[in-house]
Amino acid sequence: MDRRGFVTSGMAAGLAGFTASGGVLGALLDQTPGKRLANGDIRLSSNENPLGVSPAAREAIIEAIVESNRYGGRRQELIAALANYLSVKPENITLGFGSTEILQICTQAFQGPNTPLIAAAPTFEDVMDYQDTMPFEVHTVPLMADLQHDVQQMHELSMKRPSVVYFCNPNNPTGTITASADIDAWIAEAPETTTFLMDEAYLEYVTDDRYWDSLKWIEEKPNVVVIRTFSKIFGMAGLRVGYSVTHETTTGRLQEHSVQNSPNVLAGAAAIASLQDEGIVERSIAVNEEAKAIVHTTLDELGLEYLPTNTNFIMHKINGDLETYRNRMADNGLLVGRNFPPMLDHNRLSFGLPNEMDQWASTIKDFRRKGWI
Amino acid sequence: MDRRGFVTSGMAAGLAGFTASGGVLGALLDQTPGKRLANGDIRLSSNENPLGVSPAAREAIIEAIVESNRYGGRRQELIAALANYLSVKPENITLGFGSTEILQICTQAFQGPNTPLIAAAPTFEDVMDYQDTMPFEVHTVPLMADLQHDVQQMHELSMKRPSVVYFCNPNNPTGTITASADIDAWIAEAPETTTFLMDEAYLEYVTDDRYWDSLKWIEEKPNVVVIRTFSKIFGMAGLRVGYSVTHETTTGRLQEHSVQNSPNVLAGAAAIASLQDEGIVERSIAVNEEAKAIVHTTLDELGLEYLPTNTNFIMHKINGDLETYRNRMADNGLLVGRNFPPMLDHNRLSFGLPNEMDQWASTIKDFRRKGWI
Repeated sequence: MDRRGFVTSGMAAGLAGFTASGGVLGALLDQTPGKRLANGDIRLSSNENPLGVSPAAREAIIEAIVESNRYGGRRQELIAALANYLSVKPENITLGFGSTEILQICTQAFQGPNTPLIAAAPTFEDVMDYQDTMPFEVHTVPLMADLQHDVQQMHELSMKRPSVVYFCNPNNPTGTITASADIDAWIAEAPETTTFLMDEAYLEYVTDDRYWDSLKWIEEKPNVVVIRTFSKIFGMAGLRVGYSVTHETTTGRLQEHSVQNSPNVLAGAAAIASLQDEGIVERSIAVNEEAKAIVHTTLDELGLEYLPTNTNFIMHKINGDLETYRNRMADNGLLVGRNFPPMLDHNRLSFGLPNEMDQWASTIKDFRRKGWI
Repeated sequence: MDRRGFVTSGMAAGLAGFTASGGVLGALLDQTPGKRLANGDIRLSSNENPLGVSPAAREAIIEAIVESNRYGGRRQELIAALANYLSVKPENITLGFGSTEILQICTQAFQGPNTPLIAAAPTFEDVMDYQDTMPFEVHTVPLMADLQHDVQQMHELSMKRPSVVYFCNPNNPTGTITASADIDAWIAEAPETTTFLMDEAYLEYVTDDRYWDSLKWIEEKPNVVVIRTFSKIFGMAGLRVGYSVTHETTTGRLQEHSVQNSPNVLAGAAAIASLQDEGIVERSIAVNEEAKAIVHTTLDELGLEYLPTNTNFIMHKINGDLETYRNRMADNGLLVGRNFPPMLDHNRLSFGLPNEMDQWASTIKDFRRKGWI
């Protein structure tokens, strides 16, 4: 069975439980995967998983509706399931309403007037956004020519004062990785006054073997916060579940800053079911690889440069004005990218289903014929 | 049709759309309302709505599952629906993951080393809990003999410095109201450096005509924050949606502190559907009144004093040790109350379905026969 066949039949099998018709249940049958919006546009701009939540998660959501009126949110069950999934202790887990809440918690728990944030440029903006309400400095360090974090420069900046260091690895919006050995060497010798925020939102998509995750540090290093999300590989961006994994003393500190009563009970049920769905990671990776291959082939054919991606999106050159390019794509029903300064000669393209990438490919080839790219 | 008949047939009509059988859909049929937990215990301790979410909300959740993988969360649609429901502008609304996030936001936005919180004792604890991570003082003022907030004493305390004043009205855990005219007189003359947090989680249950809500202040007074929740009258405690209504300059300030990407998309869909379900408020009030009547009759018969309630719970005397009482109730499958110092001679009882309150009534009458209360 080829890869496309595998993904398609895998989904069909997963959806087989949903054989019903009529009334409210018709909605279940409409749950075809993909990135098409209600108005017919295909959104390839938000790094969402085009497969949607797993069939097991859909079933778990429906079964949990009866608990919607109750406090509890499957909180302890989800923490236990995560601890089991990651081979850590429940005391290592802090839940958030998305990993963005974990980032907010970290700014509150670790930043201050004398504790700057050190981060790459460009990188994921949320941690910087929370600066608006907190008095802390941000030092941004441009990515190096090979698109890795400038670990040496970040390290030097951290030596002056207590610091919070943010690594989005793989990095959003570039899709590139920084070699874990370089970061590990720094963590191994860093003082406890340097806090490492290791945002691993896209780790499952990585193919570069210079990358590995940071979980091994949490028992030894209370200053390492590993940040994960259910939004990407598990397709739960709309359900708002993220978490951190830390030494248990750090967990206690982070939980003081959490919004109470996390998570939403339907999201908790979906997250637990997703962890138990052994095929979902494989299916998400397979469909992503298939989409990536279509995009690579197309960009190669057009001679448009792109960054090596280890995520579910790619940064590629567009040979022209970015906003004009995006508007023309939108005119063709394809929502792609946004501005990520200073990389305004690149567009960030999220991977959808293979047929959606085929549509993008034919559109961008048409742009070439029109002399637009 | 008597009241019990009204509630029961109203639910039956609302559930009529869910006529299906077999497979995953069997779960829909299991969505009988009530407060019974999976182990058979009846939870009458968390002020949850025993009717569960409205049938319209259940349907909306199922229809929105297909959006679980997307960012967006029906955020703008929910804000617009709330603005319409409340006859305010979208710019007046701040969404939170439950009203508890709004309380957390308010501590971050308004408190500081020189800005104390002034609150009743006892009152809802969440706003005090967020003090753990913020350097602010808390001045608690005991409720008066008639269980109203001591408005005069709170007012006097607020004159010394900029202050944040918390009114949970009706008050949790007492269930009692404070006359709105007394609070209004203070708001009318207060300086802008006094911020009023008006927590109206239970307002729909009020029967005392000395109470009215605080919405009228928001256009004139940027220092008034009206706080609401979908957890009580709409039965959505597990879905985590709350909000504030404020002057638009205050809204901008509060939103800086929000966790990004609120709400969960299923919760957003359920909230919008609940606002459009014109019967849900009436049904929730009707079943609450029926439960309340059973409890009043029982407590009167036993000669146990209770506080006048304007909520979906009641505080009543138990003539003995509180923990022993609770444990004995738990032995009978009824989870009731917790400790609310200094009122350790009272238990807080949440109202469930009428048949659940009948079970509570027969249990407490049995306790009397055993000489336990």
